[in-house]
Amino acid sequence: MKASNLIFATQRENPSDAEIVSHKLMIRAGLTRQVSSGIYNWLPTGKKVLHKVENIIREEMNNAGAQEILMPMVQPISLWEESGRRNQYGPELLVFQDRHENEFCLGPTHEEVITDLCKNILTSYKQLPITLYQIQTKFRDEIRPRFGVMRSREFVMKDAYSFDLNQEGLDLTYKNIREAYLKIFQRFGLDYRLVKADSGAIGGSDSEEFHVLADSGEDLLAFSDKSDYAINAELLVELQEDQDPASLEGKDSPDGKGKLKLKRGIEAGHIFKLGKKYSESFNLKVQGDKENITPYMGCYGIGASRIVAAAIEQNHDDKGIIWPNSLSPYEVAIVEANPKGKEDISAKCGEIYNQLIENKIDVLWENTDKRPGVKFADMELIGIPVMIIIGDKALESNQLELKIRKDEKPLMVSQEDLLNTLKELN
Amino acid sequence: MKASNLIFATQRENPSDAEIVSHKLMIRAGLTRQVSSGIYNWLPTGKKVLHKVENIIREEMNNAGAQEILMPMVQPISLWEESGRRNQYGPELLVFQDRHENEFCLGPTHEEVITDLCKNILTSYKQLPITLYQIQTKFRDEIRPRFGVMRSREFVMKDAYSFDLNQEGLDLTYKNIREAYLKIFQRFGLDYRLVKADSGAIGGSDSEEFHVLADSGEDLLAFSDKSDYAINAELLVELQEDQDPASLEGKDSPDGKGKLKLKRGIEAGHIFKLGKKYSESFNLKVQGDKENITPYMGCYGIGASRIVAAAIEQNHDDKGIIWPNSLSPYEVAIVEANPKGKEDISAKCGEIYNQLIENKIDVLWENTDKRPGVKFADMELIGIPVMIIIGDKALESNQLELKIRKDEKPLMVSQEDLLNTLKELN
Repeated sequence: MKASNLIFATQRENPSDAEIVSHKLMIRAGLTRQVSSGIYNWLPTGKKVLHKVENIIREEMNNAGAQEILMPMVQPISLWEESGRRNQYGPELLVFQDRHENEFCLGPTHEEVITDLCKNILTSYKQLPITLYQIQTKFRDEIRPRFGVMRSREFVMKDAYSFDLNQEGLDLTYKNIREAYLKIFQRFGLDYRLVKADSGAIGGSDSEEFHVLADSGEDLLAFSDKSDYAINAELLVELQEDQDPASLEGKDSPDGKGKLKLKRGIEAGHIFKLGKKYSESFNLKVQGDKENITPYMGCYGIGASRIVAAAIEQNHDDKGIIWPNSLSPYEVAIVEANPKGKEDISAKCGEIYNQLIENKIDVLWENTDKRPGVKFADMELIGIPVMIIIGDKALESNQLELKIRKDEKPLMVSQEDLLNTLKELN
Repeated sequence: MKASNLIFATQRENPSDAEIVSHKLMIRAGLTRQVSSGIYNWLPTGKKVLHKVENIIREEMNNAGAQEILMPMVQPISLWEESGRRNQYGPELLVFQDRHENEFCLGPTHEEVITDLCKNILTSYKQLPITLYQIQTKFRDEIRPRFGVMRSREFVMKDAYSFDLNQEGLDLTYKNIREAYLKIFQRFGLDYRLVKADSGAIGGSDSEEFHVLADSGEDLLAFSDKSDYAINAELLVELQEDQDPASLEGKDSPDGKGKLKLKRGIEAGHIFKLGKKYSESFNLKVQGDKENITPYMGCYGIGASRIVAAAIEQNHDDKGIIWPNSLSPYEVAIVEANPKGKEDISAKCGEIYNQLIENKIDVLWENTDKRPGVKFADMELIGIPVMIIIGDKALESNQLELKIRKDEKPLMVSQEDLLNTLKELN
């Protein structure tokens, strides 16, 4: 992609209403713009990141054998009455009437719709187990939306729902999707923890959360420095009848392995064994060998738009965003340092641009007539992992200067070594 | 994909409320299920087709230099007051209040949001021309939704918006997107016509529609049998002061090339020069060389979910859907005709399945224990272009039987020739 064809919409000033760094940087780097409280436009750079998040999720869900579907945003409220959640959910469920005065709501989640759908498409035990998922826009009428897309009203989620014949089947499916989630979060390139989410989870694992570690996280997590034991710190003090979560730091980990550390986390994924709650409410049954069977359900969410914000909370400095490679809007930026508009510099840029494209590297060529300093600042703000700087110096020395966003150490490489060096950096 | 891991949800009976063939077949082939009047779930097979439609659109819009964004479904009504369309749009615009009693609507289109957005991100004439697009869920509160996803309330659209400095720029951009649309509709593999949409369009081309030809189409089209001249028949009789659209059949084409033919069409795409209507309403201006400039806008829509239905209206028989290759949920189905569960037949299927996957062919292996006759009927109903039948006969003769959905002539090929034959059929 050439920058001359792009809208960057970067800005130097922080938006006045932004409280957390991801919100500030998403506006400044031109990823999003607010439409109304808690409602956002995703600009080209932001949409590209969101797309990468969605594709990683889609690939791993497909690999896990889940099937993609698409359910509607507008849901008949009758389904929420059938599940008994209409009142329980409270005013975050935005209810309205259509032109015929029938009541609907904007779906904040889809347990009701999927269970009702499966009453129609599931008939025999032979069809189970099955896991269906969607990547879709949801709405939750937060009383005080804040923190940009981190806690917005309209947001993009991947939600999955599984159906099994019995508890053992659900346990297996849950484990399978849990494995897929581990791969997804690894591919995001984020430092995360899989956290036991409620007391019922101690010992068992009926509900677990995937937290992206970041100082601004809402939850304080306690985890072992030697094992993958991790738990909400509030929950652990409750269980251990301690007073103060801070006192957990350095204590022995409850699993007997290593010492506890404390860090804050942003919840970005949640896996949950629902059991028969919804299948019973909706009287969903499949024909069994001898008698009808009420399926055991699980549900599995990832906040796709939230992942974008969480990645920034974890990875930034005072110059801007520092994307993990897999989520960056571009893997590499060619910065044309060519204030005098020399043809041989542009030609060299074009040559390397084409070489990278041929090698399927997602590259941005900053070919505008902006000053080199402005280009560097933009690329650092947007957070591209590697800059290749091509100007007079590069042409004279026959060496390309690489700037790595993470450590900012410049690296000189010959054109011949470029591809291998990029591969090593990835 | 193996059928044993899939939910097909095919059914033999026509749904009682379905009036047109695409609606019937989408339910019977397990593509969609109704949630509420005009609101649908997309099941795995249907979602796969929708995904293929979306990807063709995305690739060609990107090739045309358009940039993908994502705008919200929930829009502040204040924007519709600013454009003056709140009342004009009428009760199809579903308006509601959030918990703070602020008014919003479900977006049926995004001219207001994009123009408001561009007030924020466009500042200089150097940023133009630019075309932004999204593939997104929309809602239009139809008084009487019918015909399945053909005229539903919630639907998926690609909508694009262009911004140019002057009329000449808009004309060029319009032409560019028009070219992209021609490629998109060609890649869909559908018989379509590009139709002049209103009288202003005769001679000029301020508004054109892409119609998929089908007997069930709402519009009667008149087009030349020798050139690409095509027009809404009602419009042509108006212009020519004729009485009866039917009288046009066989007359000389107004462009002087060939004779007119009459066929019905389904509007599935629309390109339109908006001019300064919205940029003036929203006071959108960019800095010019000397003075501020009000951009000229264009808008360009494709009904992604409607394309799925239109493709079926055009391509079906009494056995079911006949997909064009590019839209089919699977390019090829391996039908394992193995009622006695013989191991060597399954092994042969697996061998060919792996061979096709290695060659990046989107293949379905019907490996369930259903009777062969049921499998054939399902594959014909779902409309897979090519079936490879593997049973006793195939093993004995060392020849594979290919059934082509379009003409149903069986074709015998050796395993060695399979890939080439599939390539030729495509």
